[in-house]
Amino acid sequence: MMRTEEDFLGKVSVPAEALYGIYTVRTVRNLSFSGRQLGQYPTYLRSLALVKKAAAQANYEAEVFDKQTCEAIEKACDLIISGEYADQFPVDILSGGGGTGINMNINEVIANVSNELLGGKRGFYDLVHPVDHVSACQSSTDVCHTAMRMTISTLWKKLNSALYKLVSAMDQKAFDFMPILTIARTCFQDATTVSMGNQFSGYSAVVERRRQEIDRAVNKLKMVNLGATVVGTGISALTAYREVVIDKLQEVTGNIDLRLRDNLFDAAQNFDDLAEVSSRLALLASTLSKIAHDFRMLSSGPEAGFAELQLPAVQPGSSFFPGKINPVVPETMIHCSFQMIGFDRTVQAAYEHGELNLNVWEGLAAWNIYESISMCAEAVEHFVTDCVDGITVNAERCKQFAESTIPFVLELKVKEGYSSVTNMLKEAEKKGITIKELVHQGGE
Amino acid sequence: MMRTEEDFLGKVSVPAEALYGIYTVRTVRNLSFSGRQLGQYPTYLRSLALVKKAAAQANYEAEVFDKQTCEAIEKACDLIISGEYADQFPVDILSGGGGTGINMNINEVIANVSNELLGGKRGFYDLVHPVDHVSACQSSTDVCHTAMRMTISTLWKKLNSALYKLVSAMDQKAFDFMPILTIARTCFQDATTVSMGNQFSGYSAVVERRRQEIDRAVNKLKMVNLGATVVGTGISALTAYREVVIDKLQEVTGNIDLRLRDNLFDAAQNFDDLAEVSSRLALLASTLSKIAHDFRMLSSGPEAGFAELQLPAVQPGSSFFPGKINPVVPETMIHCSFQMIGFDRTVQAAYEHGELNLNVWEGLAAWNIYESISMCAEAVEHFVTDCVDGITVNAERCKQFAESTIPFVLELKVKEGYSSVTNMLKEAEKKGITIKELVHQGGE
Amino acid sequence: MMRTEEDFLGKVSVPAEALYGIYTVRTVRNLSFSGRQLGQYPTYLRSLALVKKAAAQANYEAEVFDKQTCEAIEKACDLIISGEYADQFPVDILSGGGGTGINMNINEVIANVSNELLGGKRGFYDLVHPVDHVSACQSSTDVCHTAMRMTISTLWKKLNSALYKLVSAMDQKAFDFMPILTIARTCFQDATTVSMGNQFSGYSAVVERRRQEIDRAVNKLKMVNLGATVVGTGISALTAYREVVIDKLQEVTGNIDLRLRDNLFDAAQNFDDLAEVSSRLALLASTLSKIAHDFRMLSSGPEAGFAELQLPAVQPGSSFFPGKINPVVPETMIHCSFQMIGFDRTVQAAYEHGELNLNVWEGLAAWNIYESISMCAEAVEHFVTDCVDGITVNAERCKQFAESTIPFVLELKVKEGYSSVTNMLKEAEKKGITIKELVHQGGE
Amino acid sequence: MMRTEEDFLGKVSVPAEALYGIYTVRTVRNLSFSGRQLGQYPTYLRSLALVKKAAAQANYEAEVFDKQTCEAIEKACDLIISGEYADQFPVDILSGGGGTGINMNINEVIANVSNELLGGKRGFYDLVHPVDHVSACQSSTDVCHTAMRMTISTLWKKLNSALYKLVSAMDQKAFDFMPILTIARTCFQDATTVSMGNQFSGYSAVVERRRQEIDRAVNKLKMVNLGATVVGTGISALTAYREVVIDKLQEVTGNIDLRLRDNLFDAAQNFDDLAEVSSRLALLASTLSKIAHDFRMLSSGPEAGFAELQLPAVQPGSSFFPGKINPVVPETMIHCSFQMIGFDRTVQAAYEHGELNLNVWEGLAAWNIYESISMCAEAVEHFVTDCVDGITVNAERCKQFAESTIPFVLELKVKEGYSSVTNMLKEAEKKGITIKELVHQGGE
Repeated sequence: MMRTEEDFLGKVSVPAEALYGIYTVRTVRNLSFSGRQLGQYPTYLRSLALVKKAAAQANYEAEVFDKQTCEAIEKACDLIISGEYADQFPVDILSGGGGTGINMNINEVIANVSNELLGGKRGFYDLVHPVDHVSACQSSTDVCHTAMRMTISTLWKKLNSALYKLVSAMDQKAFDFMPILTIARTCFQDATTVSMGNQFSGYSAVVERRRQEIDRAVNKLKMVNLGATVVGTGISALTAYREVVIDKLQEVTGNIDLRLRDNLFDAAQNFDDLAEVSSRLALLASTLSKIAHDFRMLSSGPEAGFAELQLPAVQPGSSFFPGKINPVVPETMIHCSFQMIGFDRTVQAAYEHGELNLNVWEGLAAWNIYESISMCAEAVEHFVTDCVDGITVNAERCKQFAESTIPFVLELKVKEGYSSVTNMLKEAEKKGITIKELVHQGGE
Repeated sequence: MMRTEEDFLGKVSVPAEALYGIYTVRTVRNLSFSGRQLGQYPTYLRSLALVKKAAAQANYEAEVFDKQTCEAIEKACDLIISGEYADQFPVDILSGGGGTGINMNINEVIANVSNELLGGKRGFYDLVHPVDHVSACQSSTDVCHTAMRMTISTLWKKLNSALYKLVSAMDQKAFDFMPILTIARTCFQDATTVSMGNQFSGYSAVVERRRQEIDRAVNKLKMVNLGATVVGTGISALTAYREVVIDKLQEVTGNIDLRLRDNLFDAAQNFDDLAEVSSRLALLASTLSKIAHDFRMLSSGPEAGFAELQLPAVQPGSSFFPGKINPVVPETMIHCSFQMIGFDRTVQAAYEHGELNLNVWEGLAAWNIYESISMCAEAVEHFVTDCVDGITVNAERCKQFAESTIPFVLELKVKEGYSSVTNMLKEAEKKGITIKELVHQGGE
Repeated sequence: MMRTEEDFLGKVSVPAEALYGIYTVRTVRNLSFSGRQLGQYPTYLRSLALVKKAAAQANYEAEVFDKQTCEAIEKACDLIISGEYADQFPVDILSGGGGTGINMNINEVIANVSNELLGGKRGFYDLVHPVDHVSACQSSTDVCHTAMRMTISTLWKKLNSALYKLVSAMDQKAFDFMPILTIARTCFQDATTVSMGNQFSGYSAVVERRRQEIDRAVNKLKMVNLGATVVGTGISALTAYREVVIDKLQEVTGNIDLRLRDNLFDAAQNFDDLAEVSSRLALLASTLSKIAHDFRMLSSGPEAGFAELQLPAVQPGSSFFPGKINPVVPETMIHCSFQMIGFDRTVQAAYEHGELNLNVWEGLAAWNIYESISMCAEAVEHFVTDCVDGITVNAERCKQFAESTIPFVLELKVKEGYSSVTNMLKEAEKKGITIKELVHQGGE
Repeated sequence: MMRTEEDFLGKVSVPAEALYGIYTVRTVRNLSFSGRQLGQYPTYLRSLALVKKAAAQANYEAEVFDKQTCEAIEKACDLIISGEYADQFPVDILSGGGGTGINMNINEVIANVSNELLGGKRGFYDLVHPVDHVSACQSSTDVCHTAMRMTISTLWKKLNSALYKLVSAMDQKAFDFMPILTIARTCFQDATTVSMGNQFSGYSAVVERRRQEIDRAVNKLKMVNLGATVVGTGISALTAYREVVIDKLQEVTGNIDLRLRDNLFDAAQNFDDLAEVSSRLALLASTLSKIAHDFRMLSSGPEAGFAELQLPAVQPGSSFFPGKINPVVPETMIHCSFQMIGFDRTVQAAYEHGELNLNVWEGLAAWNIYESISMCAEAVEHFVTDCVDGITVNAERCKQFAESTIPFVLELKVKEGYSSVTNMLKEAEKKGITIKELVHQGGE
């Protein structure tokens, strides 16, 4: 069962039951390629609906429409926020065109829902029009710009909390392992003794620093450009609307801290704020990957490796080797890290290729950040719970390594100087004995 | 309703109705982070099932199990190939651990299905065991390695065909636009005349060359290591099995060309064959993005831009500007291109970080290639149908540009030499007239 | 003329006149590949010498050696700081091995110079020994770590100042061009009117923000680990030395703000502080490249382009087209930007591949940052002086664009609403007239 | 002492002794930022001079100038080819503007040299003019395009030969180490036995494959566009010239295989041929880095590591630890690899950002490839001579690892099946003995 809708390019069939309309149908038909639909991203959808709700309130105050219309739109937004209608957002979240497909999809759904609330009929926009009412005083640019930043801030909370847990877990291990002296390696060669606790304190410190830096970058996303419409001039947005819309947005979001950007032309031209969040996520990824690699090395063995650490055995490592346990949780952390590095590459490409008054690749960048944060939050949760929390240390092995030759030679150097020890090494070599033996002989 | 299964690490509850078993449950619980499940990737699943089917036949010939067992496994594989049971593959397709979670998921499903075919009970593996039978003579390494390459070859067919269409469409435009002389720009400045057809012939040539290079790289993926098991020694695979398994695989796939890698140790250590496919996809992406950018520029306007080309108007460009038409299809092509460049970054990270006898990040690389190829195939199809096919040229505008000053000066230089024309330019400037006027005067 | 020196691996010939010794010769022979020698990097060399001077003073206070030795070493350091002996630093600045080649090169030169100051002979290290004295209480790790951060802070000053000038120049243009209304484009299509001044204010804002973010990241490099020796334990460095060495370093550098890192194990494991500087440089590069691209587009023409801006003609654009002027300065800015993005890629690879107690790839990262900052400082200076300062606007062209159809339609929409204007567009099309004509008729 | 030269933009002072002229001075002044001058790149300079020589001969045949002029130009080119005048090429090799600065620098030097050969005076171009004669029938585009490809082909020979040596050296080690059984690790955990020789055969195979792939990509660079002038139309180049110029180029280069590109518009628009060489160099880099990392791991120790391999001790590893030997040669190989990956990033950025009829970033791309190939050739030579050739294996250590538990369990599985061995593992655990002990007991 289809209905017909029309725009200035002609008529299009729309499923009779659909809450979306002609623009959505065109966008789905022309611009789908990624297999990801807007409806699969509830946090973004919720942010968009909050923006639309705030805009409706501001439009009401600006006398763009009456109380009744405003309430209908608000109600429609609330339903979307509550998770209704997720199946009514079929546009490809990666579709090009500067976010118009996304903005129009939600405009059409809100229009149809509020229309029906007011007694109107699906597909007829006489009471509430997707553009004239739902999108009044807005452009896709400022709506999506704002909602994307809200989305990232929301998603970040989960990753932030996971990273807190990781830092805590590392701190606990640093404390527990502080008495364990083991070997430090430089250039992968035996070097000097170090406490395993100190080594873990380094892991904790770097993760905490990375967390703080991302947090600082995300915090800047509170600066949004709602009201600036398309390139920053605010054309088509009434002054009365612009004066209140950010306040309204704060209200409907439960007083999230949101502010108007200082320079609205800058806000349209550049999304370096997103690119900065992304590059810091990439740095976090490299950091987590490094730590996970360390865990794999330090737990290598059981016999032919370092075997200083034991990771919890969460599942058999292999379908092939009975009894083999692999570091599958760190390896999943590494997978996630490499994926995040790839997501960042796309964000930077999108930033790099911006031009003139509006960087139209912003939506692509935002999606890559959503994925990066969401995946990382999940992977870090597992990393904490299924790996770090359960790591134990092989104290005997560490002791044996700590007492090996190179650290011994270093201790000797501290007492005797580099040149003397170099000479002792030559002497030992000439005598065909180890330096430990030479020192022992000398000590007699 | 749950049943209990057990491995050497302990007991785990499994949904009573599940065709998968304990290993899958552990993997889902420990290693999920990306929101993408194996079951969502039918081409890969089908390839895995084909490998399992071929392995069953080879195991039967090697007398690992009897005819009845073999037929049950084959039947189970056929059901998976036909698309049954997609919901029985919940492991995260990006889970770490070198593919064991993926291999075991399909092993368990096949075991349960074939078990039941033989009258056994779900969750009891006495008749057909996931490892002892379904995975006999195999490791996750060689099974996934092989299936991943088959998957890429299959997915590539669709992109290859889309690129063929793009080349044809470009050739057609090159032919149609050959009589249209327009301006060529260098350093974004007016330069010389060129036929718009010749310009399009350049687009066609580069896409065709990129297509051929990817095709060549994908063609090398016919070299697989099935039978090499985990690091290339073939340990645990019977000779009788190894001798026939590749032939069996060719048979069950309908005679796809598949060969055994020359050096099986190399095959386990390195996946540069995949990394090469990926870097060529990235080059294709840059190429497509460049062309799509050109289309945006050449169709810029309608009044304040180049306006040499007109792209088909597939949808209103904006919720904001009545009548504005944006190049949304090229922009979607560009989105896809940037995304592909990010996918390649992840593939290269996975390759870069390989170590020792087995690069365990291969599965991550393969997924990124699946996504890259699949997205690109969709985007290019739209690009051809909804954009290139319908491009028209604004002949008048082109003529006007072709007759502008710099091309005129260049023609003059061809006749008079650089130094003379430089002097004429100075003279014209001194007289306060244009060089065209000067030449015209001189001609009198 | 050669002399012979010996270490525990054997004897090596050293040029008799060389101030460096056996270690430098071995390093040059084994590890040269890049064609860049330490001596070509005076800022880094100076930083290393300052660290060595501070270390000498601290060693004197810790009673490692006497006043005379200290003064000789200080004098040798001062000579290096003053630029003497640049030809005595032939080690490849990109050589691997965690900086030992670099540290030993300067140790040997200082040893020989101070030796001779004390009446000793070149190549004999009985009075001042490269390791026992010059490198006392130090490792290559903490010496290079510290000197690299000092170097970046110093180089940054020049780029910081160039960016200040760029921001000022943009601000001036923003002011000058504020009265000029022109067209804003979105998706490369005519959109709405905007003041050219506002457009430039966006350029200014983003450059200033990028500058501040780099400045903040560079500022963190004041945290150094001198005294931590190799992995953070401070082994081999006397307490008396460690207590004063950072203060000494502040003194010899003329009170540059330098502090000891909070966690010295972290400092050895991770150089995310450098990686962060680098990723922000890459973001700056993308930003500058975007602006330079805009200038190319906005000055495209003269006849077949946008031609809104005129860039200063600093040189003929071509050997081919008499009179053609190309945007060569922006194009050089873009070259520099792409090069910086490549340098960052190397830095991130070096960070990504760190392992265990010490990231030994730090020196490679630092070199890439040196190059990135140095090149950018030069290119931005040219960009300001030879391009931005001289940009003029083509007011007539801008006016013409500002009065084109789409902005007109948008103004109409502001008054009449999207739906009405859509209907008017259809009506105009039906009548075969433009919307401007339609409105004009209606107005009669 | 200065002389004055003039172009259509005005007068400029040129050093009286300079063989270059006004264009070079302007370019040096406006576009220098990288600290690298054309004169430092003799292979590129030589290629440019060969192109100019061939062009002179073709111009003579096309009757653009007489025999005498042609011979003077040829003589000037020969002098440049022989290495004279390297100090006369001060333009920044990374300067923007599509290569005009580079082309004009050599045009001016040739003009002055040949002028003087004919009795003219430096700085007066009446006998031989830089543009009208030296650059006749040419543009910067086709001259640089052609010379860059010749340069890469020449530089590649050295790297190709180094890679041959590396493959040979690896093959020798594969042969020597074939009898040595050691442990293979997967997921960094003990896995199965493998011959160290087989492991090295994997290294050899992948390097050889990478070498072949680069060779194939470089081979395509024989397709050049000399004669196509600026965007492919060949405008300004006489037919008589175009018919012979490629043949002349083959002659002057001693019959290097060079051909005309099929589609000259494509050749100007796209440099995917260079981008492909670059991405294959990046893949080589990742491959070499992986192998060098393996060497570091396999030689880790001497006591607290794997210690399966011993790398030659080429220099003391540290200024800190007497007797410590670090894998400095592999680490230098890794430095080089990461640097190459960065160079590739710049090449891809340059390719990605191409637009319209001519990708003007090609010169930047070429420079990055020159550096990448040159550095890699040096680093690989060292890697072969100072590392691979001297690697020895620690047979006892390998034997011990080969006989560890997990390989034993795997052998057992081959005989008994996965399920049985899993049960035996549980039984052994219950009894508190090892599986080896259990099997030994069972065997009694």
